[in-house]
Amino acid sequence: MGASYTIAMDRSVIALLLFPALAAAQSNPAAQAARKWRQGHERAIVNEFVTLLAVPNVSNDRPNIQRNADLIAKMLEARGLAPRLVSVPSGNPVVITDIRTPGATRTIGLYAHYDGQPLDPKEWASAPFEPTLRNRPVEEGGTPIALPSAGTPFNPEWRLYARGAGDDKAPIVAMLTALDAIRAAGVRMKSNIRLAFEGEEEAGSPNLESTIAANKTLFAADLWLICDGPVYQNRQQSLIFGARGSMTFDVTTYGARTELHSGHYGNWAPNPALELARLLASMKDRDGRVVIPGFYDQVEPLGPLERKAIAGAPAIDAQLMRDFWLGATDESPKGLYELLTQPSLNIRGMASSRVGAQASNVIPSTAFATLDIRLVKGMDLARTEQVVREYIRKQGFYVVDREPTADERRMHANVAKVVFAERGGTVARRTPMLLPIAQDVIRTAESARGPVVKLPTMGATVPLEAFERPLGATTIIVPIANHDDNQHTFNENLRIQNLWDGIELMAALLTM
Amino acid sequence: MGASYTIAMDRSVIALLLFPALAAAQSNPAAQAARKWRQGHERAIVNEFVTLLAVPNVSNDRPNIQRNADLIAKMLEARGLAPRLVSVPSGNPVVITDIRTPGATRTIGLYAHYDGQPLDPKEWASAPFEPTLRNRPVEEGGTPIALPSAGTPFNPEWRLYARGAGDDKAPIVAMLTALDAIRAAGVRMKSNIRLAFEGEEEAGSPNLESTIAANKTLFAADLWLICDGPVYQNRQQSLIFGARGSMTFDVTTYGARTELHSGHYGNWAPNPALELARLLASMKDRDGRVVIPGFYDQVEPLGPLERKAIAGAPAIDAQLMRDFWLGATDESPKGLYELLTQPSLNIRGMASSRVGAQASNVIPSTAFATLDIRLVKGMDLARTEQVVREYIRKQGFYVVDREPTADERRMHANVAKVVFAERGGTVARRTPMLLPIAQDVIRTAESARGPVVKLPTMGATVPLEAFERPLGATTIIVPIANHDDNQHTFNENLRIQNLWDGIELMAALLTM
Repeated sequence: MGASYTIAMDRSVIALLLFPALAAAQSNPAAQAARKWRQGHERAIVNEFVTLLAVPNVSNDRPNIQRNADLIAKMLEARGLAPRLVSVPSGNPVVITDIRTPGATRTIGLYAHYDGQPLDPKEWASAPFEPTLRNRPVEEGGTPIALPSAGTPFNPEWRLYARGAGDDKAPIVAMLTALDAIRAAGVRMKSNIRLAFEGEEEAGSPNLESTIAANKTLFAADLWLICDGPVYQNRQQSLIFGARGSMTFDVTTYGARTELHSGHYGNWAPNPALELARLLASMKDRDGRVVIPGFYDQVEPLGPLERKAIAGAPAIDAQLMRDFWLGATDESPKGLYELLTQPSLNIRGMASSRVGAQASNVIPSTAFATLDIRLVKGMDLARTEQVVREYIRKQGFYVVDREPTADERRMHANVAKVVFAERGGTVARRTPMLLPIAQDVIRTAESARGPVVKLPTMGATVPLEAFERPLGATTIIVPIANHDDNQHTFNENLRIQNLWDGIELMAALLTM
Repeated sequence: MGASYTIAMDRSVIALLLFPALAAAQSNPAAQAARKWRQGHERAIVNEFVTLLAVPNVSNDRPNIQRNADLIAKMLEARGLAPRLVSVPSGNPVVITDIRTPGATRTIGLYAHYDGQPLDPKEWASAPFEPTLRNRPVEEGGTPIALPSAGTPFNPEWRLYARGAGDDKAPIVAMLTALDAIRAAGVRMKSNIRLAFEGEEEAGSPNLESTIAANKTLFAADLWLICDGPVYQNRQQSLIFGARGSMTFDVTTYGARTELHSGHYGNWAPNPALELARLLASMKDRDGRVVIPGFYDQVEPLGPLERKAIAGAPAIDAQLMRDFWLGATDESPKGLYELLTQPSLNIRGMASSRVGAQASNVIPSTAFATLDIRLVKGMDLARTEQVVREYIRKQGFYVVDREPTADERRMHANVAKVVFAERGGTVARRTPMLLPIAQDVIRTAESARGPVVKLPTMGATVPLEAFERPLGATTIIVPIANHDDNQHTFNENLRIQNLWDGIELMAALLTM
């Protein structure tokens, strides 16, 4: 253990020389304690993480969701805590627990979710629920390697591959490890702490708000820190003060009742794939800006602190374009973080008949697309749905929200079935950066991790309203995963250094 | 058998009263003999058809293709003929046989193909290679029924469901049954006859021309009748004097190297599904006319007989629109048969990420479409490919014909992979209606089936050039299947009456 400790110290010294900002990380005693503890327990920490990742966690897989919740409860109990599993009928359990601090005058909640996105195992380089350590990202030829033996340090650039590695089981392990470290070092806590772990965030948190509303005393807190999502793309710590909302819809266009032979009927029978292409293509201009009338009408302008924060965020577009093999971005020269304060309209997927070797010489009978809209502060779900429906109508489609009848198809040149996801989606939330508790979180995070990037909103959707509406709580998003973690797609992973950094950050936040 | 014969006669008498034109069918002695023979052997004829349909016939399924060829050879041998299986390396066998007529001064070939389109059995109402008789079309709730016992007549509106039922095993059984009938009735034949059955037409007949070129003496004929495709949509017999050509290509557009989270990167990272939609939508105007510059430049105008034939074809657009649940057609008010003399550009299928319940909140990494072009007389394959490629380039795409590199994707805002099918496709062919042998075929068909619809070209592609180029033969297309046979898609079927009619037509053609 002596040898490995020396190596880790050397690495830390080099980091301090190269990045003076990191010196600030030493000023927070809980973060210092967390680093020491981690350096002495790397293998044990990763073991606990691997055990958690090995439990399949797609939110509609009820038996495995229960196994996740039970395992997390055991992890909490092992720390002497008294977790409870709370849920509403047909909801997945939220694991919640308290850490009381005598004399505390405020309560801080830390949230993460243990469920993960649906997946197709065939697309993964290794089985999604057999956590696999790799020496490099799989896209760079990373190969599986064995976990180092206890006492041998992990290379912090190694990555652990599994569904949920980045999104969002890492914060759970980071919080519990931070707690171990604080206690071992005897660092004093100042606030009451609540930890809550949800099991259906990737399904859109359909029951989180009602679960909280039904258990207000369990969840009451001044501040909920939503520990989810990735840190800044230059790997700098970030804090995010809001999240875009989200709504999804499906569009189906119709040709003939059955697929027709493309020779016998080609250039006579209308092609629904072409109709769909026309409709989708018409929704944005060449720059990528949505041209649906009224789409941007409700967008609430940013305040001065928020505008300053965006202007101050490190430029990362060029690096991201290189990483992602992109030759252009939408609405250039606007940068990513400016654009994320605007709503988006995105085609998630498109399908009509078959393609490539499976294609046959037909005119498709239907064409199908799934889209999502990311809403920003001020935008209303019902109004947004209305402008989209109205736009599709204006494009000449007879719009229905269920399967059109034969006669409806005969009577209208263009028919579109437009179905918005039943629950109506999630609105955007944004916490003003000038709130005192927001300023306190910024100071604490910077004492542990050096200067942080402050963003008015994240692009993705997290269930902030579930805490804000029933509890009146303030929410701030605290990410720890790497941005290149392939969350929501195949080969999801966590970069080991992000787990180490996350432990230090959680230690600081638990003791603020 | 007496009772059933009476019923069949009654039906025939009613038909004569309702459709005086059908009386002409009685003027051809071979067709008359064929009807009598069929009425006495319905179950045996269908049995032979069912046996042939039960052999799976997708052209890349070599063992089953061989079983088809062997079975057809046996069916020919059972008639005292001496079939040969000829093929070129890696080609499927063509079954060919001769019927010599002493004193004949001309040779007429009859062609059909025994292979069928690829399929997905999950889409079929009953297994595609377990031929199933239904009392109505499956779209109208038709249910499986047992074959009637020998001597009980088939309801001519029943349908037999199986891959290949309509396209294109029916003509094989029709020809052989017609031969049985002619012989039984002692009707004299006047020409030498050649029968040829191909096993890879649905794969684009990649080897038919080279097989014929390598066996010219076996295939030499003055006229080849290509027995394929459906009769006119009002169920009237048709003769078609040409076929559109065909070429296919795949287009892939590119976004980021992997799927990206639609929240974190939505309205910053370009969406390849939107790029593809834009490209495809731009290729046609609102009427459905192709706007690719040069696309129509090589189209050869129709002659006066051909224009007259189109003008004289019964109007069927309104009926087809009702049948197909269509509220509009492309280039309205032009009718189907006018449009089929023009080239088409068709999206066969489209795919990007996943849709519906399988969708996840990503920006797709790629989008994919397969398209086909139907060419008409005068259009050149290479020139057509060139105008399409040039058009895609003009839309702002960097066009490659293999996977683009990371740097190519980084250096170009829009990248499209455009891959034309390797063999280059098939050009269109058209036999002038004023040729004496063409006029002879028209007279013969009308003597068996009453007035026929004469069309300058069919919309689909049949391998006319394979006969025309090596042999200098004239070709005319002789369809017998119902137009609503679902050929090339699931639930392919043959209407029983079309088989009966086909037998009579084949009898007339075999004795012309």
